Amino acid sequence: MRTIEIMCLNTGYPCNCLTTGNPCEPCRMTAKDRETEEDHLSNNINSTGQVGATQSEPNLTLASSAVVRERGRSWGGLLSGIISLNILILGCALVSASAFNNSIIGSAELQIFLIILILLTTIWMLYYAIYMSVKDQAVTYKDGHAGPIWLRGGLVLFGLLSLIMDIFKIASYVGYLHCDSAVKVAFPVIQAVFILVQTYFLWIHAKDCAQLQRNITRCGLMLTLGTNLVIWMTLVTEESLHQTTIPEYPNKTKIYGRAAFNLRASYGDDKCKCSHSSCSMFKDAYYYLYPFNIEYSLFASAMAYVMWKNVGRKADEHHHHSVKFRVKDVFLGPIAGILLVIAGLATFIVYEVEVLKDDDDDDRLDRALMMHFVMNVVIVTLMSVSTMVGCVIHRLDQREYVSEKNPTRNLDVGLLIGASMGQFIISYFSIVATAAAGGKGYLNGLNLAWGVLTVIQLGLQNFFIIEGLHREPFHEEHPITVFTNPYVLEASRELSSLEGSDMDTKPSPVLTTHTLSHRPKLTWKRRVLKEVCAFLLLANIILWIMPAFGARPQFDHDVEIKFYKFSVWAAVVNIGLPFGIFYRMHSVASLFEVFVTS
Amino acid sequence: MRTIEIMCLNTGYPCNCLTTGNPCEPCRMTAKDRETEEDHLSNNINSTGQVGATQSEPNLTLASSAVVRERGRSWGGLLSGIISLNILILGCALVSASAFNNSIIGSAELQIFLIILILLTTIWMLYYAIYMSVKDQAVTYKDGHAGPIWLRGGLVLFGLLSLIMDIFKIASYVGYLHCDSAVKVAFPVIQAVFILVQTYFLWIHAKDCAQLQRNITRCGLMLTLGTNLVIWMTLVTEESLHQTTIPEYPNKTKIYGRAAFNLRASYGDDKCKCSHSSCSMFKDAYYYLYPFNIEYSLFASAMAYVMWKNVGRKADEHHHHSVKFRVKDVFLGPIAGILLVIAGLATFIVYEVEVLKDDDDDDRLDRALMMHFVMNVVIVTLMSVSTMVGCVIHRLDQREYVSEKNPTRNLDVGLLIGASMGQFIISYFSIVATAAAGGKGYLNGLNLAWGVLTVIQLGLQNFFIIEGLHREPFHEEHPITVFTNPYVLEASRELSSLEGSDMDTKPSPVLTTHTLSHRPKLTWKRRVLKEVCAFLLLANIILWIMPAFGARPQFDHDVEIKFYKFSVWAAVVNIGLPFGIFYRMHSVASLFEVFVTS
Repeated sequence: MRTIEIMCLNTGYPCNCLTTGNPCEPCRMTAKDRETEEDHLSNNINSTGQVGATQSEPNLTLASSAVVRERGRSWGGLLSGIISLNILILGCALVSASAFNNSIIGSAELQIFLIILILLTTIWMLYYAIYMSVKDQAVTYKDGHAGPIWLRGGLVLFGLLSLIMDIFKIASYVGYLHCDSAVKVAFPVIQAVFILVQTYFLWIHAKDCAQLQRNITRCGLMLTLGTNLVIWMTLVTEESLHQTTIPEYPNKTKIYGRAAFNLRASYGDDKCKCSHSSCSMFKDAYYYLYPFNIEYSLFASAMAYVMWKNVGRKADEHHHHSVKFRVKDVFLGPIAGILLVIAGLATFIVYEVEVLKDDDDDDRLDRALMMHFVMNVVIVTLMSVSTMVGCVIHRLDQREYVSEKNPTRNLDVGLLIGASMGQFIISYFSIVATAAAGGKGYLNGLNLAWGVLTVIQLGLQNFFIIEGLHREPFHEEHPITVFTNPYVLEASRELSSLEGSDMDTKPSPVLTTHTLSHRPKLTWKRRVLKEVCAFLLLANIILWIMPAFGARPQFDHDVEIKFYKFSVWAAVVNIGLPFGIFYRMHSVASLFEVFVTS
Repeated sequence: MRTIEIMCLNTGYPCNCLTTGNPCEPCRMTAKDRETEEDHLSNNINSTGQVGATQSEPNLTLASSAVVRERGRSWGGLLSGIISLNILILGCALVSASAFNNSIIGSAELQIFLIILILLTTIWMLYYAIYMSVKDQAVTYKDGHAGPIWLRGGLVLFGLLSLIMDIFKIASYVGYLHCDSAVKVAFPVIQAVFILVQTYFLWIHAKDCAQLQRNITRCGLMLTLGTNLVIWMTLVTEESLHQTTIPEYPNKTKIYGRAAFNLRASYGDDKCKCSHSSCSMFKDAYYYLYPFNIEYSLFASAMAYVMWKNVGRKADEHHHHSVKFRVKDVFLGPIAGILLVIAGLATFIVYEVEVLKDDDDDDRLDRALMMHFVMNVVIVTLMSVSTMVGCVIHRLDQREYVSEKNPTRNLDVGLLIGASMGQFIISYFSIVATAAAGGKGYLNGLNLAWGVLTVIQLGLQNFFIIEGLHREPFHEEHPITVFTNPYVLEASRELSSLEGSDMDTKPSPVLTTHTLSHRPKLTWKRRVLKEVCAFLLLANIILWIMPAFGARPQFDHDVEIKFYKFSVWAAVVNIGLPFGIFYRMHSVASLFEVFVTS
């Protein structure tokens, strides 16, 4: 029998209730003892994921485990949160310093800080990966909702593009080695290694609900989160500054990474010349890849945060709903959606080609912009209408609301709303600017319409997705076989009560046949819901593709630039747009879930 | 018997299980029906706060009430959240527009938007107050933790000062009526009415857990929150702009609302002259009162948010812990704290007097600054040391962690950490600036030390308070009367098991006497905890008084101003400092709670 030393609360005298059964006054477990208990619990998780019965009293184990969980969460969670907060704010101060003060704190000092953070994070991730592979029972619980394939796939895609960016950066900065700090070359090298390690780590471990070394894991994950967010801040600031270094922005368009490239001389070209000839080419190239690295940091942050929330969580394996993804149930939605995607892609390609042409034909550019705006207005209008239909169906719908708590779903909803803020901000800033300009000119009018419709669409879509996620999935009701034999009826009734279904206790043959004849066909409501989801899903994909692959009408149309100063507008777009892109991808995943469950 | 129409899920045919008991296939309640049920439930809350038994089956009522609650929360909460989000972001866009663009969108347009928001909010608050007073059973549940006295007292204090500010504003702007928009006079008038109504509303209703018209109440509260945050944004921006309108900040100190006042001419003095002579006096006066209005908006926002969280919550009345506030248990902490407060007040007054003097004696000003810095460093060091002692005691402590969920406590912790961000940001920005300046000069060294120590102190204090709030209060153990009569022993054992206490089932006479003899004296750990809490409480009060009543060493010492541009540093301080002040007040309240429970 295991000896648990228990200290009496008031007197401080030890009393061994469990071991000796000696009379002792009311006492509770000590904090120290609970810690031992926690380790003990953790070590006793056997391969089936059940907490092994320890040698101590089972009642005691059960009673204390709740306390242990709460305690671990409060202590480790707190410490890791404070660490992450400090990293973030220090990072924020350093980024601001390097942005607003060119003399003392330059980008080199900031990069040294980032290198330290990255090294610490990489070491921890390697340690975690090795520790988990050595202790093969270490992770018994997996959260099936965490790290879905779209998130991991996006991570790998953006990770690859970030790696290419780092290679271009190295190639470019090597040319400056003779007259500038070596940190500028070291940083991309270390960042490339970090991206490799982190992508591997998150790909493998995104679903983990870590049970061992919970406090260390929490701190490690918060370090990862902090590092990624500081990198994100740095990238956003660099991108904005890079765009603002153009001394006079041209009167018309072509500011964002296009014809304006030749104007830029941000990297100390005045005193330090590049030693090889392809410098400027590499520089041009890597600035194109910045948005992908920004997106990569956001994805990694989201995944680290989800892992942090899951530490110590005893989640049951994701029970896949029995409902399957059947495309043949729906027809109109996917067809309309695919047509929209094709039309969107076509106009997007034409728009990009026109904008990237080097000549300064303003009329041609205005036509391209108009086409892009019209396309976007059409997409957003169709989406708003179909979402409204979906919301009405939800109101008419008879499905139950999910009553149990689900942290992953709450997190999903939080990320959805949080990410939508990015697009909201851009749209509202755009609305104010175009409305103040009086909506004069067809481009302004279209821009205003686009902004207003986007706000409406975002609101409706958030509402629709969140309502959908909170509904119980449609269960395929198994028809009850009814016999005239009363004993069998009894047994079937027992079975149904065992399953916990709220079926009527007196199934009658008449109604059973009724059920059977109607089962395979969808009701019109389910059908409409599925059509709406399929359409919205595809529409979100095209709205994702356009900004992700370079469409920046925000900079090609100059109302907002003139209204706010350029730097303000660049900051708004550079902060908002990556969140907007993330939002579209997240929406696609959530809509897929709503599609499957409705 | 009440008829509940129930639709069958698969077929859509109605079947009246409850009314007729006819055989029908498995069916659930419809959404429409659940809504009726919700109204029914709400209307049946009787005066004792118990849900009255409706005419329908009690089982059904119980089963559906959980669903109803979840449903109401998701639907109304979502809608109100989206409303508030939209108000906030539109407000943010308008504030940015009025800040960065002087020609088209001026402060008048922003003020019209604010007036609309304020009127809507005021109407809703009046409606709510009248509705609640008419239906006297409307609020049965009160959250005892919500709207504590320090928050409501602060609200009234800052509200009064804001009213004075509005009166000064009206008096000043009336002089410009002949040549400027009347909106500038209308706005302070409406704001004054709003402050009166809102202060009354929050004073009376801060503890409500609204049960009727939940969705409308949620939307109204989110409107209130949005309005207050937009006002807050406007005030912060105006304050920052007001400070930056000084064309050349003097080389040394005296920038913040002091000698620099005569330099300021932000209010269109170039083309529009004031018609009465006391204009400039009123203008000087009301800019002094800006920080109080900023603080008022923050307080009101926090209270509206807490009320929003409490809508529909069936909280039990706050059961006051039986532990009492006894000052005689502690001695060292309060004495040291009071000495610290007196010393702090003395140096603060001397510092303010020196800084406000009009002559340009730099040495005298440096001496005053040094004294202020030294005082702050001493306070923060003492606080850090005592907090560390407290944390160690917490680690050694044997008290249970609270296992039940408590939304108010979670909110408290969230507000605490969120508010501490403000001070964190100022300190880190200050650290980076002074560290980059190399810490040359004793003032820089002191400033750097102050920054670093403040960060440490904030981290430790957050940790200490949160740990303390998560511990079970010390229960005064009622000594068990033990008789030799076995039947009475049996009864006492039953009693103790009824109370749910984890007392040993075999209380022995020996140990009972032991308890009795030790009860009235505090253990040394409890005693030390109480001393630490009392000391920290008083130290937080002095750290609250100094910035709240005008100490701005951040602007009197010019390292940060030179390092970041002035506008950046003004924005950081103006956003961060009100949160820092709020944090100190919140800490005082939380520390009092920790003091009482430990």
